[in-house]
Amino acid sequence: MLRDFDNLVSEKMKGVKASAIREIFKVAGKPDVISFAGGLPAPESFPVDAIKKICDDILSADPITALQYGISEGYMPLREAIWDRLTNKFGIKREDDELIVVSGSQQGMDLTAKVLLNEGDGVICEEPSFIGSLNTFRTYNAKLYGVPMDEFGMKMDVLEKTLAENKNIKLIYTIPTFQNPSGITMTLERRKELLSIAKKYNVTILEDNPYGELRFSGEDVPTLKALDTDGLVIYVGSFSKVFSPGLRLAYVVANRGIIDKLVVGKQATDVHTNVFAQMIAHKYLTEYNIDESIENSRKIYSHRCSLMLSCMDECFPKSVTYTRPDGGIFIWATTPEGTDTLKLMGEAIEKKVAFVPGNTFMTDIDAPSNSFRLNYSTMPDEKIIKGISILGDLLKSKF
Amino acid sequence: MLRDFDNLVSEKMKGVKASAIREIFKVAGKPDVISFAGGLPAPESFPVDAIKKICDDILSADPITALQYGISEGYMPLREAIWDRLTNKFGIKREDDELIVVSGSQQGMDLTAKVLLNEGDGVICEEPSFIGSLNTFRTYNAKLYGVPMDEFGMKMDVLEKTLAENKNIKLIYTIPTFQNPSGITMTLERRKELLSIAKKYNVTILEDNPYGELRFSGEDVPTLKALDTDGLVIYVGSFSKVFSPGLRLAYVVANRGIIDKLVVGKQATDVHTNVFAQMIAHKYLTEYNIDESIENSRKIYSHRCSLMLSCMDECFPKSVTYTRPDGGIFIWATTPEGTDTLKLMGEAIEKKVAFVPGNTFMTDIDAPSNSFRLNYSTMPDEKIIKGISILGDLLKSKF
Repeated sequence: MLRDFDNLVSEKMKGVKASAIREIFKVAGKPDVISFAGGLPAPESFPVDAIKKICDDILSADPITALQYGISEGYMPLREAIWDRLTNKFGIKREDDELIVVSGSQQGMDLTAKVLLNEGDGVICEEPSFIGSLNTFRTYNAKLYGVPMDEFGMKMDVLEKTLAENKNIKLIYTIPTFQNPSGITMTLERRKELLSIAKKYNVTILEDNPYGELRFSGEDVPTLKALDTDGLVIYVGSFSKVFSPGLRLAYVVANRGIIDKLVVGKQATDVHTNVFAQMIAHKYLTEYNIDESIENSRKIYSHRCSLMLSCMDECFPKSVTYTRPDGGIFIWATTPEGTDTLKLMGEAIEKKVAFVPGNTFMTDIDAPSNSFRLNYSTMPDEKIIKGISILGDLLKSKF
Repeated sequence: MLRDFDNLVSEKMKGVKASAIREIFKVAGKPDVISFAGGLPAPESFPVDAIKKICDDILSADPITALQYGISEGYMPLREAIWDRLTNKFGIKREDDELIVVSGSQQGMDLTAKVLLNEGDGVICEEPSFIGSLNTFRTYNAKLYGVPMDEFGMKMDVLEKTLAENKNIKLIYTIPTFQNPSGITMTLERRKELLSIAKKYNVTILEDNPYGELRFSGEDVPTLKALDTDGLVIYVGSFSKVFSPGLRLAYVVANRGIIDKLVVGKQATDVHTNVFAQMIAHKYLTEYNIDESIENSRKIYSHRCSLMLSCMDECFPKSVTYTRPDGGIFIWATTPEGTDTLKLMGEAIEKKVAFVPGNTFMTDIDAPSNSFRLNYSTMPDEKIIKGISILGDLLKSKF
């Protein structure tokens, strides 16, 4: 019998819809559609041969550890290898911080929300921001406060005003580097300002950094965590864009008190992260050259990004503006005010091109947005050229 | 700087302690301690050679699928293979039900709680019950109502009285077969009664069945899900005890409306389960003989269980009673009233033997319990004999 569950579903889950991006994927995934809607790493960046060798080594040398229960904190040798990399490459030091391995970044957001948020608490996010994380906060009945960005990142005057006016805010969620969906990177000055404002209001910062290593132009900017002298930053790093998303591996670095609670939350959520996958990542970090592999990804994305931008320069009407990212995998385009890019997407899909409309990334997903997100990480050259040309024609017919 | 997080932690997480079992493990894990405290499958049951071959096959034939993002519902061929097995072996039919792959049973409980429970809602559980699940419900600020068991399972008169008196109850959590920690299996009559009571009060049943296939004596009893004609049962099955816990693979079968919401919850929690692990399980289910492997596990557990029971018959004082399970991995022992087995455990650990005290599994973990849990799945014969003899001497010195 099919039961009517509408009355039975929890209040916090009633408002959360299946990710619009995933619905778009169902259309965009058709073979005749050129899709700029995704957010997947280039499959040619996966170190398949190395992983094959590693699996064989692990299952020969230490199969029981790989297949038996592990501990909630994560596989110790992997935690050590991540710490070494964070310290050497990113200037992130241990001191009062600890690290937990989680099943993908999304779980970092989920556990942070579980540990810090009561229902009705406020979360500040960039406007636009990553729908996956916004939906996580929504499942905790958190109230979202969007802070707009300019080319330097989150606007600090709006941030401070929002904090001053809303005493329920517990968390500032930010993707400071090659932001999803905007591609914008927060400047060093803004980062320092953000830390100082967070300290003033005693609000925790949740730094989501999945794309940080995918820079292909300009100079690295330190992570908020590397600048964090007050234990304010919860840092989430991921293997999804630099190794493999299918293995679901990420990590959270935060003050010891927070990590202790995240471990308890992890125990009650999925006990521990897949041990075999953790051992694969550990061997790859310690016995192979992940930097070489990341350099390879950077080259792929650099090429595809500049190809897409030069096609856009050529084909898009001048009234459509867009970001020029220095890394990551997304470009954010903005059409003249008053446009509803959700409707525009319907027309683009008829012409066999897909993107994600801007409203998807907003705190109010029901309000029309005149922006949209383009992804360039997985498309071959000819599809980028053809897709942007079709999109350009559509845009020119309107603006 | 080390921040003081006591004021920042969410109300729902304040009361949840790190699993007492995991703390006990830290002591029990010392090499000179004979530990009956665990709940791990026997490592000799892991099909290591098959998994090694499977990994090589997957990474040769379809590495991109294994390493790229997957969908929240789970890897479709694995879902199909699980359905086939559920229908053929357990009489569980699709009709109005759907299936989602999750990252271990614990996540099945977590997502169910997320989707069905508002803060303050009630959850009925067996008293005693599995601490992992109880802690999951606690992290949603659910109120736990323990219903005692006799040798036939949960007492139905107490269940009905509890439901009649508490209108906030949304969920009945049960491990009907080879229950953790008691080893008790609910009879067919009780199962039918449970379904009828749940229907009368329109309360959902969460059936947790990780040990169901590990029967070594007596006749199989149908799962609640197989008897469920009204869409009342959410069924959680697991690969942890019949394949590998380290790979974190389980599944939830429930009415379509519930699964739709669980998928949204999964998206917001960890996006999807490790695809590589799902492909490994799929290949194992379809190209190897899991029934043979389970038969092997049953033999191991049958032998260890009857050895432990005969040692207990010989060494324990008559005033200590215990269950005689027909499957699974746990025995539940009860000492004379007034004993605090938490204190008893301290003394046992001094003598280098570990078990889990009964209060751990109670809705009120702070109240002393005169029972304790023994696990026999991983210990070699000589340690079972020696450990039970030491424990018997300790018990005889008291009762």
